[in-house]
Amino acid sequence: MTTYKLHCFKESGNSYKVALALATLGVAWEKVNVDYFDGQTRQPSWRVQTNEMGEVPVLEADGRRLTQSGAILLDLAERFDALRLAEGERSEVLRWLLFDNHKFTANIASYRWLRTFAKPAPHEAVLAYMRQRTVAALEIVDRHLSTSRFIVGDRLTVADLSMVGYVYYPSEELGFDLRAEYPGIGAWMDRVAETPGWKPPYQLLA
Amino acid sequence: MTTYKLHCFKESGNSYKVALALATLGVAWEKVNVDYFDGQTRQPSWRVQTNEMGEVPVLEADGRRLTQSGAILLDLAERFDALRLAEGERSEVLRWLLFDNHKFTANIASYRWLRTFAKPAPHEAVLAYMRQRTVAALEIVDRHLSTSRFIVGDRLTVADLSMVGYVYYPSEELGFDLRAEYPGIGAWMDRVAETPGWKPPYQLLA
Repeated sequence: MTTYKLHCFKESGNSYKVALALATLGVAWEKVNVDYFDGQTRQPSWRVQTNEMGEVPVLEADGRRLTQSGAILLDLAERFDALRLAEGERSEVLRWLLFDNHKFTANIASYRWLRTFAKPAPHEAVLAYMRQRTVAALEIVDRHLSTSRFIVGDRLTVADLSMVGYVYYPSEELGFDLRAEYPGIGAWMDRVAETPGWKPPYQLLA
Repeated sequence: MTTYKLHCFKESGNSYKVALALATLGVAWEKVNVDYFDGQTRQPSWRVQTNEMGEVPVLEADGRRLTQSGAILLDLAERFDALRLAEGERSEVLRWLLFDNHKFTANIASYRWLRTFAKPAPHEAVLAYMRQRTVAALEIVDRHLSTSRFIVGDRLTVADLSMVGYVYYPSEELGFDLRAEYPGIGAWMDRVAETPGWKPPYQLLA
């Protein structure tokens, strides 16, 4: 049986994407805690041995080491029937997965980081710039979800698992009350949360 | 024969990625100029009819309309032998394509945009923040290319076509003299530029 080890930390929504995929698949996995705040991923030895991109998550499965949450999710989608993509879904899922990496997660995560964890605290102008970028991405997704139950069609795919990476973190961290400000996104968050195995990030990665 | 129409504008490195793929494949394509600077992609009608994500490029091929440069490149890789991915290349190519969308193109393009095109001019603190993010991404790729001829292995793949999206724009626009400051990236730029059909962005999208 495959043993899954997930190098992660609980504040990392990119880690949460993969943990949530494993949890909803009902697959057992082991957590390897990464001391991100103490600079573990910036150490040259970690970059050489674990991930040259300096990022979590890293998923170890049968001796293979996978990185980039989007690539890991696509790999899981090839290995598990519940997440397997139909021919007609594949290109739409890829498109939203890339949009997530480029604009949605990218901006939500950076803005949250700056407001909540960055030291020294960022300049006000930087916060305003990143907030405006985040709003633009949220608006596009909220509009899309006003006419679609999930990101692609009527069922959960890896596009959803990628895009929910940061949305369940506390509003104070995100700087948005997503359910109140973006009803399309809020309704989708509720639908995804009904998936058996779902837990919010600070519980799942605790 | 398939007719390719590329909705693009010459300052868009994401458009260049797709144009360069078509050019190196030796495929004929037609340019549909998008008046980005005048707000065409922000108009509700363009969003509804052309791309809800509000982005270029958009590639029309046989009545299908594809968006997101990474998804378009992966689609072309399935349709043309010269770009077809071997089983062993696929996951590495995906990983770098996602990294490109998340960190490499994402930061290079935003920083260039802010320094070169943004009106009103951004606050100094915003420029400094985006420069630092760009440097972090450039360093990771420069280190990777110090031991690899192309992004994945010894031949051009869609990972290269994605990651060169912005690197050939003029140094004054980018804010970096990439060849002088990042020799690994510089040597790779020269190797990619040897591909038959290659042209720099302002020539290819002129």
